[in-house]
Amino acid sequence: MDSISLMGSSPASKASFLPNGVKNGPREGSSKPSVAIIGSGDFSKCLAIRLLRSGFHVVVGSRQPKRAAEFFPHVVDVTHHEDAVGKASIIFLAIRREHYSSLWDIKHLLAGKILVDVSNNRRSNQYPESNAEYLASLFPESNVVKGFNVISAWAMQSGPKDASRQVYICSNSVEARQQVIELARQLSFIPVDMGTLSLAKEIENMPLRLFSDWKGPVLTAVALSIFFFAYSFIRDIIHPYVKNRQSFFYKIPLEMVNRTLPVVAITLLALVYLAGQLAAAHQLFYGTKFRRFPRWLQGWLQSRKQLGLLSFFFACIHVLYSLCLPMRRSERYLLLNMAYQQVHANIENSWNEEEVWRVEMYVSFGIMSLGLLSILAVTSIPSVNSTLNWREFSFIQSTLGYIALLIATFHALLFGWKRAFEEESYRFYMPPTFIVAVALPVTVIVGKAVLMMPCVAWRLKRIRRGCDDSQHHADRERPAAHVSPERVTIM
Amino acid sequence: MDSISLMGSSPASKASFLPNGVKNGPREGSSKPSVAIIGSGDFSKCLAIRLLRSGFHVVVGSRQPKRAAEFFPHVVDVTHHEDAVGKASIIFLAIRREHYSSLWDIKHLLAGKILVDVSNNRRSNQYPESNAEYLASLFPESNVVKGFNVISAWAMQSGPKDASRQVYICSNSVEARQQVIELARQLSFIPVDMGTLSLAKEIENMPLRLFSDWKGPVLTAVALSIFFFAYSFIRDIIHPYVKNRQSFFYKIPLEMVNRTLPVVAITLLALVYLAGQLAAAHQLFYGTKFRRFPRWLQGWLQSRKQLGLLSFFFACIHVLYSLCLPMRRSERYLLLNMAYQQVHANIENSWNEEEVWRVEMYVSFGIMSLGLLSILAVTSIPSVNSTLNWREFSFIQSTLGYIALLIATFHALLFGWKRAFEEESYRFYMPPTFIVAVALPVTVIVGKAVLMMPCVAWRLKRIRRGCDDSQHHADRERPAAHVSPERVTIM
Amino acid sequence: MDSISLMGSSPASKASFLPNGVKNGPREGSSKPSVAIIGSGDFSKCLAIRLLRSGFHVVVGSRQPKRAAEFFPHVVDVTHHEDAVGKASIIFLAIRREHYSSLWDIKHLLAGKILVDVSNNRRSNQYPESNAEYLASLFPESNVVKGFNVISAWAMQSGPKDASRQVYICSNSVEARQQVIELARQLSFIPVDMGTLSLAKEIENMPLRLFSDWKGPVLTAVALSIFFFAYSFIRDIIHPYVKNRQSFFYKIPLEMVNRTLPVVAITLLALVYLAGQLAAAHQLFYGTKFRRFPRWLQGWLQSRKQLGLLSFFFACIHVLYSLCLPMRRSERYLLLNMAYQQVHANIENSWNEEEVWRVEMYVSFGIMSLGLLSILAVTSIPSVNSTLNWREFSFIQSTLGYIALLIATFHALLFGWKRAFEEESYRFYMPPTFIVAVALPVTVIVGKAVLMMPCVAWRLKRIRRGCDDSQHHADRERPAAHVSPERVTIM
Repeated sequence: MDSISLMGSSPASKASFLPNGVKNGPREGSSKPSVAIIGSGDFSKCLAIRLLRSGFHVVVGSRQPKRAAEFFPHVVDVTHHEDAVGKASIIFLAIRREHYSSLWDIKHLLAGKILVDVSNNRRSNQYPESNAEYLASLFPESNVVKGFNVISAWAMQSGPKDASRQVYICSNSVEARQQVIELARQLSFIPVDMGTLSLAKEIENMPLRLFSDWKGPVLTAVALSIFFFAYSFIRDIIHPYVKNRQSFFYKIPLEMVNRTLPVVAITLLALVYLAGQLAAAHQLFYGTKFRRFPRWLQGWLQSRKQLGLLSFFFACIHVLYSLCLPMRRSERYLLLNMAYQQVHANIENSWNEEEVWRVEMYVSFGIMSLGLLSILAVTSIPSVNSTLNWREFSFIQSTLGYIALLIATFHALLFGWKRAFEEESYRFYMPPTFIVAVALPVTVIVGKAVLMMPCVAWRLKRIRRGCDDSQHHADRERPAAHVSPERVTIM
Repeated sequence: MDSISLMGSSPASKASFLPNGVKNGPREGSSKPSVAIIGSGDFSKCLAIRLLRSGFHVVVGSRQPKRAAEFFPHVVDVTHHEDAVGKASIIFLAIRREHYSSLWDIKHLLAGKILVDVSNNRRSNQYPESNAEYLASLFPESNVVKGFNVISAWAMQSGPKDASRQVYICSNSVEARQQVIELARQLSFIPVDMGTLSLAKEIENMPLRLFSDWKGPVLTAVALSIFFFAYSFIRDIIHPYVKNRQSFFYKIPLEMVNRTLPVVAITLLALVYLAGQLAAAHQLFYGTKFRRFPRWLQGWLQSRKQLGLLSFFFACIHVLYSLCLPMRRSERYLLLNMAYQQVHANIENSWNEEEVWRVEMYVSFGIMSLGLLSILAVTSIPSVNSTLNWREFSFIQSTLGYIALLIATFHALLFGWKRAFEEESYRFYMPPTFIVAVALPVTVIVGKAVLMMPCVAWRLKRIRRGCDDSQHHADRERPAAHVSPERVTIM
Repeated sequence: MDSISLMGSSPASKASFLPNGVKNGPREGSSKPSVAIIGSGDFSKCLAIRLLRSGFHVVVGSRQPKRAAEFFPHVVDVTHHEDAVGKASIIFLAIRREHYSSLWDIKHLLAGKILVDVSNNRRSNQYPESNAEYLASLFPESNVVKGFNVISAWAMQSGPKDASRQVYICSNSVEARQQVIELARQLSFIPVDMGTLSLAKEIENMPLRLFSDWKGPVLTAVALSIFFFAYSFIRDIIHPYVKNRQSFFYKIPLEMVNRTLPVVAITLLALVYLAGQLAAAHQLFYGTKFRRFPRWLQGWLQSRKQLGLLSFFFACIHVLYSLCLPMRRSERYLLLNMAYQQVHANIENSWNEEEVWRVEMYVSFGIMSLGLLSILAVTSIPSVNSTLNWREFSFIQSTLGYIALLIATFHALLFGWKRAFEEESYRFYMPPTFIVAVALPVTVIVGKAVLMMPCVAWRLKRIRRGCDDSQHHADRERPAAHVSPERVTIM
């Protein structure tokens, strides 16, 4: 009965009661359904305030009701556990996992009720089973629902103004879950139905997660940065020092860093598209889209967005470094010395048409490439992204992305110019950095060209469309069990 | 009856059942309402998984149930069409339009049921009528609902983590529509009620749309770019070549582009505000706000946001180009040659106070203008925009926008300085680019000044307030049938 | 009865009706519940269109029904007030506050009905009581609900495509409030339950608000800008003019501004973290987290996000100014003159290793600091922010933010280098600007070091955990009544 009265505040159930007529008398009571909270900590207080605001009557169960009552608004009924539990059908447990067993004594009172487990742990996977499953094992006759743990006490109280309003909810009882989902909606949260209690562990790990999606991509970027920095350092600092005793160590903070950044940026961007190509190759090889990709490829496909955003970040910092170069004292001294030499050598015009064109062109390509990447980055902002349909998203991320990669490759090649063919560029037998940098992008561009060849493209299209003739959405169908290789990155 | 059991999972209907008592027995069944899906393609699979997660029982109708069953979770009931249709009141059609007629044989089973058409076409307006309306004409006794077509199979399965969660729904049956809306909500989507089935075509075209809002503004920007590039090319490259055989072709990739970009940027920004002024002029001329604007003006008013964002994009690229100028080889050679000449001419101090001030001022105005435009751009991000009320939005887009236009005009005038009055600037009788650039912005600024004159402003205010004395919100009232000229751009 | 029929369009109430069987006959009527609107202005028209779209029947009450009917779709029933009020249980009042009393005559017809007050005022706090409370005092037997006033007539009509969809609703009647909330949801808005009618004033002030959260931080930034500009002006322009008659006035538009911007940026960033440290000191001093912070500190804590974003904005503009410096004519003239002098003095190599390293290092630190700040800024975009959990948010805003402050301080110190110890830097006894700039950041960094000392950190942790042993979420618990000092800034 109590579970009904909880919902008495929604118009729908009101509609369902009114015809009964009899209920019109105590309607005042039914319009203020009761929710119980066990525990009197901060979260309990904030939850109580939020429930009151939404028109619920709140009963708090505490071990020391008198002391706890001070901290609650006076309309809250602060009482003993037994009493609180008896007064409501939805009971929030705002206590730690260690104290769950202390409710053993009132087990009979909890039977048939909805117990909402809002607890969090200090570490991921701290216990073999989730807190909610442990609770369900203690009280098998209650309907345990996991939820609200991603909401901080503070957000719970302030509510709608806070950005993070999604509440993940799961339970083995569909009905209990739906009741708590409805309750979350009434508290102005956006409930997300996660299914059965087996997902409780995932939900409990959510607030403990620290950029788990970013770990792989960031480690990749760091590893690439270290490698390319060391490579440039040996070629451009160690080599001239060893060979000619020239000290270029002043180049470390800016020039060396700025030689590393673009190489990492273009490599990350190439990695984004390489993943999709490998997935396409996998499908072509096995002739089906229903075969699962290997684990590493799946992970790679899923981190394309992060790889793409990191590529953009590195490209931006590269631009900033490049723009700062003319600002340096070293630049000024070198220029003054060159002026001195030109005057002394009596060269009236030092113009070198080829050099002028090379620099004008590579700067130009660099800007174009960054311009395109910035469009990709802006459409990765969730609220911008959600205004795009799949076709628009795919146009920006796939078509524009490939063009950006192509232009960035030209940018690198124009930077290197003829140096690839000069012997002196191969210091310690190491090719110039830009050659190492464009190796992967060129491979990816060639790969794309192969995939665009009519015979290959046609075969791939057939495979992706699947063979089930009852399918609709031909060009939107994607493998059900894995990430689509078409859904190219930087979301 | 089945349509009721579908809703059995919502607390409200549970409340409505419980009092009956009798239903408590088979509650297990009623809490797992059935939804049928016709078709066994990818979309069907992903939809089935999503429905299962939210506690529904899923029946799939396939022409080859045995073969199809392999691809579905084992709890899904994969069966023949007739069987599937009989088990549920909401039936998703995950088959292509061409196969709709194959359901003709079970027409009698579909009568009174809700048919959800999730289909898409390959091209916009591929058929004279929408798929949903065609379906409704085939099965007039069923309640056809259009929806979920904007959701890809992949997003359908992954659900809440995906950004695009809006589902557009329409139907001629209000009840059927509301049931599907409620269902969408239970699947964690955000349903948007679009009204009657006549909007099905619009909904079907949604996923095929490719930046339709952007077409006009982008074409405008491209046309302006070509025009101004050609103009500058003739004046600054062809003219000196023809007159003095001077080859400045190296200027094409950077300097010519960078002369085009700011002109296009300021023209686009002026166009944004010109639209609003023309709308105001239209209202002043006819003395009413209830007269529709001409089609072209309406389209122009609606693309102000896109024009503004393109203006910002061009301004940013212009800044990038300008900042790259000192980095060029040509700049270095010119500087070295100047140093050489200064030494040879024995000029100790080449300082030119006027030139110094001109450049300091125009750089300064340029930065201020970009700073203001960047605030306009940030508030165009949908999630930032939605934190602003109308007054704040209007302050940023209208007041700050006009100030940005004013400062950008000063920036251009300071760049040109006295050259407008020098005869040699009129090459081939063409005035300097900056004069062409500021013509439109100056017009718009003068137009704004006229509209701000008390007598005009007062008349306009009266017209916009309308004449109905029962109105409230005096300063928020806007024409019902068309876009407000007040709602100035770059949303 | 009418209030039930309103909800007849939701599947849940349909479920509740169907079992009755009897109601199946007039279902056509019940599926189109009626809503009345008093007033026939723009808002009334747009609301009517929106209601129609969602399947409601609309009755409009006007003083001149014949004239008003022209402006409404023909399915809308435009009639006299008495008639309109009698036909629906939810009545929107789309008239001004001054006309509320004109409904006095039909007071008896309004009894027991839901009156939705959608009105706005022209100024904040224009009347001693809110419009909704005034309405409730006039019609004490009606259930007054405040809401929809933040929606413009235009947004009301265009609906789902508009970004601002949140509707704030309050009422003293929980049932009336829930019905209007459900109605808002059916109109595709996102209702936010604000509680009792005492919040109506706050809701009415919402659309009149003009960046109220930004006032303090912007004033702070402006005051700091004026102070530091004047300080630099006296030291760098007035002093050389007074002492040596050197005219550096050309430096005002760029160099002086660019000397002010970074100082304001770093000071604002330091202020962000100082607030949290003062809050921690307050808690340590009183030994409890339950004591309220003083008003000024509370306000300061709440404007940390704005202070942080302003700091980022100033830093960006500073970067833009700095990058524009080499572009100036003055820079070119100075360089040419230096080349002339170098040639005349016959100095072959003007290289100064210390100067080179200083500039390379401080540019490098500047870029790093901006890179970190840009990550903080991106995570402040509401839709990005909402994808982060509290731990991730805290890592970015607190850990990364402190590192950015530390690096920015190094940037400033490297800029100043040894000048702090040179007597000639103390012009008019004023220390160099960079010393004034780093004073506050250094204090904050020392403060952070103190708070991180194990003994202090341990005590603070204990205080923040509170003393209630029934608490869970140990490390997420925050004071219920005030903003958390942990929730560090730039949200």
